[in-house]
This record gives sequence, C-alpha cells and structure tokens, in this order.
Amino acid sequence: MLEHMGQQAKQASWQLSVLTSAAKNRALQAIADLLEARSQPILEANALDMADARQSGLSPALLDRLLLTPERLVAIAADVREVCRLTDPVGQVIDGRTLDNGLKLERRRVPLGVVGVIYEARPNVTVDVAALCLKTGNAVILRGGKETYRTNAATVKVIQQALVDCGLPAAAIQAIESPDRALVNELLRLDRYVDMLIPRGGAGLHQLCREQSTIPVITGGIGVCHTYVDQTVAFDSALAVIENAKTQRPSACNSLETLLVHRDIAASFLPALSARMHAAGVTLHADANAIAWLADGPATCVPAEEGDYHDEWLSLDLNVKVVDGHAQAVEHIRLCGTQHSDAILTQSQQAAERFVREVDSSAVYVNASVRFTDGGQFGLGAEVAVSTQKLHARGPMGLEALTTYKWIGYGDFLSRA
Amino acid sequence: MLEHMGQQAKQASWQLSVLTSAAKNRALQAIADLLEARSQPILEANALDMADARQSGLSPALLDRLLLTPERLVAIAADVREVCRLTDPVGQVIDGRTLDNGLKLERRRVPLGVVGVIYEARPNVTVDVAALCLKTGNAVILRGGKETYRTNAATVKVIQQALVDCGLPAAAIQAIESPDRALVNELLRLDRYVDMLIPRGGAGLHQLCREQSTIPVITGGIGVCHTYVDQTVAFDSALAVIENAKTQRPSACNSLETLLVHRDIAASFLPALSARMHAAGVTLHADANAIAWLADGPATCVPAEEGDYHDEWLSLDLNVKVVDGHAQAVEHIRLCGTQHSDAILTQSQQAAERFVREVDSSAVYVNASVRFTDGGQFGLGAEVAVSTQKLHARGPMGLEALTTYKWIGYGDFLSRA
Repeated sequence: MLEHMGQQAKQASWQLSVLTSAAKNRALQAIADLLEARSQPILEANALDMADARQSGLSPALLDRLLLTPERLVAIAADVREVCRLTDPVGQVIDGRTLDNGLKLERRRVPLGVVGVIYEARPNVTVDVAALCLKTGNAVILRGGKETYRTNAATVKVIQQALVDCGLPAAAIQAIESPDRALVNELLRLDRYVDMLIPRGGAGLHQLCREQSTIPVITGGIGVCHTYVDQTVAFDSALAVIENAKTQRPSACNSLETLLVHRDIAASFLPALSARMHAAGVTLHADANAIAWLADGPATCVPAEEGDYHDEWLSLDLNVKVVDGHAQAVEHIRLCGTQHSDAILTQSQQAAERFVREVDSSAVYVNASVRFTDGGQFGLGAEVAVSTQKLHARGPMGLEALTTYKWIGYGDFLSRA
Repeated sequence: MLEHMGQQAKQASWQLSVLTSAAKNRALQAIADLLEARSQPILEANALDMADARQSGLSPALLDRLLLTPERLVAIAADVREVCRLTDPVGQVIDGRTLDNGLKLERRRVPLGVVGVIYEARPNVTVDVAALCLKTGNAVILRGGKETYRTNAATVKVIQQALVDCGLPAAAIQAIESPDRALVNELLRLDRYVDMLIPRGGAGLHQLCREQSTIPVITGGIGVCHTYVDQTVAFDSALAVIENAKTQRPSACNSLETLLVHRDIAASFLPALSARMHAAGVTLHADANAIAWLADGPATCVPAEEGDYHDEWLSLDLNVKVVDGHAQAVEHIRLCGTQHSDAILTQSQQAAERFVREVDSSAVYVNASVRFTDGGQFGLGAEVAVSTQKLHARGPMGLEALTTYKWIGYGDFLSRA
C-alpha cells in the first residue's frame, strides 16, 4: 500500500519542485480558506477521536492536546497564512563562481523531494507540517498519532481538495490513515521514494527510526538541558534565569533538567535556590554534596538517583549537582546531555568562551535561559523540528532545513581537462 | 572491542575540537614528515599484502591499486602538506544577529566529532581521510579493505606516532586492524560514539550501511550519469564532450553511462557517434530505435537490455537511447539515474534552463562533461566523498562537509519572555 503512496508522492514532488513561490502561496491561501469553510467534517471527526480518547482514559492534559475547536481551527488557518509571508528558500543561489577551467558553477537551493513525518497527538501538526513542506516544494507523507487518525484524515481530505482546486496533485500531501503500527515500519523502509524522515515524538520513536529506517532520519527533540552556575554570578540574576528555564513550560524539550553549581557558592546559593524553587513548586533532586545545603530549605528535596541525570523530567522536577569547577561541569554535560541546549551563568568572559568552545550542543548559551531554543525565537519564522543530531541541520529547523542544493555547471561544450 | 575504540575516539574528538588551525597544521606536517622518514615498515607491510593479493589472483589493475612504492608514499605525504594549505572551516561564523528579545545569536562551524570511514582497496585513502579529518578537528575510525589491512595498520601506526610527538592523542586516528567482517557490522551500530559514517565503495557496501547503520550515513559514489543531446547541437562540439565523458576515466563514478539523443537528429547524429566511439574503442548498447542508425556503423553495437540503464558500466561501454524530446529524456533520467551527474547538450537557452530545473541530481551540467563532478575541479581543495543523497552534503564533499554548526546565544541574564 505505501509503495503506491510513495510513487505518487515522488511524482507530485517533481511537479511541486518547479512551482513559483506565488503559485505555492496561492495554494497555501486556498488551504487556509478551505480549512475555515469546511471545518465541519474536521470537527466531527475530532469529536469521534475525542470520544474514543476519553473512553481509553487519557489524562485531561492529553485530551486537551487532541481537542480541536472552531477557534483552534481558525488559529491553525492563520498559521498557514503566516507561512505565505515567509521567504521561499527554493531557487536561492548559495554561492557560485567561474572556475579556472571555464565552468560557471553555482549551488542552487532545491526542495528535498519527499519528506516523511511521524508524529504523535496534536492535530495542528498535520497542517503545520503540510504547509511548511508545500512552501518549500516538497511532497509529504504524514503519519499522525493513532489517537487522532480520524481528525488527521478529515484534515488532509480538505487540504487535498484545496490543492486540486489550485490545479496541484492531491498526492503532494498524503496521510497514512490506518492506525496500523506495521505501516510505520513500512514507511521507514520506503527509501526509494522518501528523501528525509522526521520523527516528532518521544525517545522510543526516535530509537525505532534510528534502528529501522533506511531513509536518512533527523532525530532530536529530546532535551536533557543543563545550566552551570559558576562562582562569579549575582544570585538574583541567576535565579531568575533558572526559574524561567525550569518552570515556563516544563513539558517542553528545551526546559532545564539539571542545574550544576560551583562548590564555592554552594553554601550560599543553594539555600536561595531552595526558597525560589519552593515558591515555584519545583521538587529538587540533589546529589550527595548538594543535599547538605538543600535538606533544610523550604523546597521539597530528595536524593538524586544516577538515572535522573540521563532522562527528561518534563515536570516541575530539577536535578541539582555540586561540581568542583568548569571541567567537571563540562564533563557532566558531555556524559549526560543530549546535545540539545546547555547554558552557563557567569560574569567571567573567559569562562563563558571556554564553555562555548567545549560544550558541543545544538545551542549553547551564556547568561540566558535554555528555553530560547525555538525556531520562532531564533527568527526562523517556523519550526519543523529541533534536531539534536549533527548532520544536515542542528537545533531549530526552519524552512531551509527542508531544502538541499544542487550544483549547476554551465559550460561552452567543455570537456574536462 | 569497538566500544573501547569508540570511547577513545570520542575523548580524542573533544581535544581536537578546541585545537587552533596552527596546531592542527603542525600535526599534519609531522605526519607528512614521518611518513617519509618511516616508510620502511609501511612498504614491508604492503609487500606482504601484495603477496597475498597476487596469490588470491587479483587482476593486474587491482594489484596496481594496492601497491605502494617509495614514490607513491612521497606523493601521499605531499598531499598531506597540501591539506595544511586549505582554509580551516572550524570556528567560522556562518551568520549571526541580535534578536528582538536581546539575545546575540550566531551560528559557528564546529567539527562533527567522530567520523567513521569504510573503504576498499587503495591504501592512500587511509592517509587522505586521516588528514582531512584532523584538519577539521574530527577523530576518525578507519576500516580499510581486507586486501591492505597490514599496510593500513602500519600506516596508522606511523600517523599515531606523529600525533603523539605533537602532544595529541593517538586515538584521534584509529584503524580497525582485523579483517573480520563482523567488525563492520559492529561499527555500523556504534551510534553512541560515531557521528557520521562514510562508506566509500560499491553499491553493496552502501546498501549494507543504509540497511544496518544506526549512525547517519553519507551514501554516494554510484553514478549512472546521463547526457541528453537535443536537436539543436553542433555535432562536433557534442561528440567531443561525449568522448571525454565516456572515455577519460571509464572506471570513475562521474563517467557517462547513458546517452539520450533527440529523435530528430538520430539519423544523422548516431552514425557520427558510431564513428567517434569506434575510434575511442567504445561498445554501444542501443535501444530499439537507436540500433537502426547504429547497426551499420563502425562501432560495435549490441541491443541494450533493460537492466543496462540502471547500472554503472565502469568500462568502455555506453547505452544509447533515442527519445521523443525533453520530457522523455527527463523521465528516463528520473527513473534510471542515481542523481549523481547529468548533462544536457543544447544551443537552446530555454531547454538548458528547463533541464536544470527539472533534473534533480547532485550536479547538473549544460554543455559540459559530467566528468567535472570532482572536489578538486570544483575548487573544494579536497574531496572526502561524492554524496548522492540529499541530506547534509550533496555532490563533492570538501572540508565543510566534515563540519556541523552550533548556535551560540549570548544574553545578559535573559529569560525567555
């Protein structure tokens, strides 16, 4: 079944790849308009998904993520119109020059071709990803979470109608509509047709893709993020950044999981931390050195277990570890981090530059919250995913990450010397 | 066994990543000098490898590829000194700006970390790849062909001595010394330590890596390259380019395998082609339409079989197919090509631009030989591999392709709004 889908997607990608930006924007407008005009079948499908989800006892938080309302659909359509306003990277000449042998050589940005996206839960991802892929001239095969498969199917049906209305192939944006998990494995091996795979979900999904996929995969989204407080900081400034990094949205991959504190300030800084974290409702998981200074503080504090340093809490929990200094902080981040986002809080320019040089994460911060790692914050205009691998794209991925380039050589019947 | 090797490589990569360009160049100089000063053990190891290779009946051509001589070793050392002269991409700031929220954001080029390279036969690859990885601050794990495993081990031993002489970790450049094939499979799953894998060899090796590796792989090097001759060309100019593309080095991946000819010129062009190819010793494999105009020509001509269009000849053989026009030529290239290098020969500016837009290969040429696809020709200074996939790097890969970037954000104790 997916074989046919892949073929259709590849065919569609050839048509999309030569569209002008204006033509792609017209299609995006049409999609936004039709999502509003034909909201009824999407909302009805979502009501059925919600009923099933309630019955299977999903948490209220998760149910809220699945829910579509007329207002949310309007917001989703507005996001599509925002994508129109972004600059189309396709066709940009990256660099070029005339070689000594006479060949006029340039590198031009082109779409990837067919992108596969595997995601969980939130139905807005369906529209987001479809819009970003269309904007960059890529066909896309979507595989949403089983909890919203009816919603996704209804949404894609409306999107495909808008494509056809604009004279574009419906196969440009396809969804795998069955919740059958075997289809994920089939998708992972569709390398004849799919050029890049983006899993958006938990560690298990990323692991599955890394192990099973014959298609290049962008893995990421898992953030065991650190902040190292050295002995030179002003406590109030540091505590404000730490509170933001931990509490603004604990469920996000760019939230703080482990705080490393220089031992010279442990005795004074940790009690202040305890007070601040108590007020913010944060539970501390302290190592043997930190616990001495935290045990009597107002914040709940339990001993950290070794495994705590390697996993995301995604909740109001924070590991606290006392380190001997810079080298030990960097070593801890290398061993326990996921190369997502890590920060140093320091007044020392030298310490800051050393940290930036030695910590090899997608995003490294000096005196700023790790929460900044985000396509919107970075001015990319959109975010397809956050990559924590090193090939192709690193950190927040914008439209450019959905493109590749080709070398174009113009000669005058030139043979190679 | 490889687990330990991976750990050591990762440790070494941290040391290499913070070296200055001057320090890396000093080490490269030391390697070049020591390869000349200590050539004896390398040549002795090569003599043993050659004796085995002769006994197992390898072809003279292959034996020549395995052979090291004092002169060849001097040339290899000279290549290492050339790498010193290349610009070090590490540390370059790709872009940067101050965001509205006050964060000073930049993207800085950094090494990938640990690179794994699996290659066949030629022992010069050992030194080439080691030098390029060192230049870019990457540690490397090398897995050479079993035919030269003694040569490779002796070479790496000399390289490691030079590293240690410069105060650098020997583990920066390691070779898997046993010819045991199971170790390749172990290397493919060393994703905890290895950041990128480059297979340099035949289609089977690339397939194995795509299927089995949990590490991001750069595949490429397989070139079913096309040239489309449309109805507007001057025959002499076209034939010169075709002869170069087919005959300059038939065993290279960037040589021509299939010629597509517009039917309007078939009757006159194909006899001229036959004469030219006969003189060059090329055997033609013609489709049903082409054979009518080639059967009576001087060049040997046999009917093409369907499989011929999908494989590299790597020899003085050329497929010839008559097409109805542009659309059919592009369709053939899409179905049979490997997205390596494809060319159009035409006097029409419009046809040229359409071809460039519609053919999605790593390198697309107008009126030039497909043989130009080469890091040296492209002015990259060096070539690690030729990628025919779309992620990370496409076409000839220079030093830049051995790097990634990190985002660095400088704040003034900034929290995310």
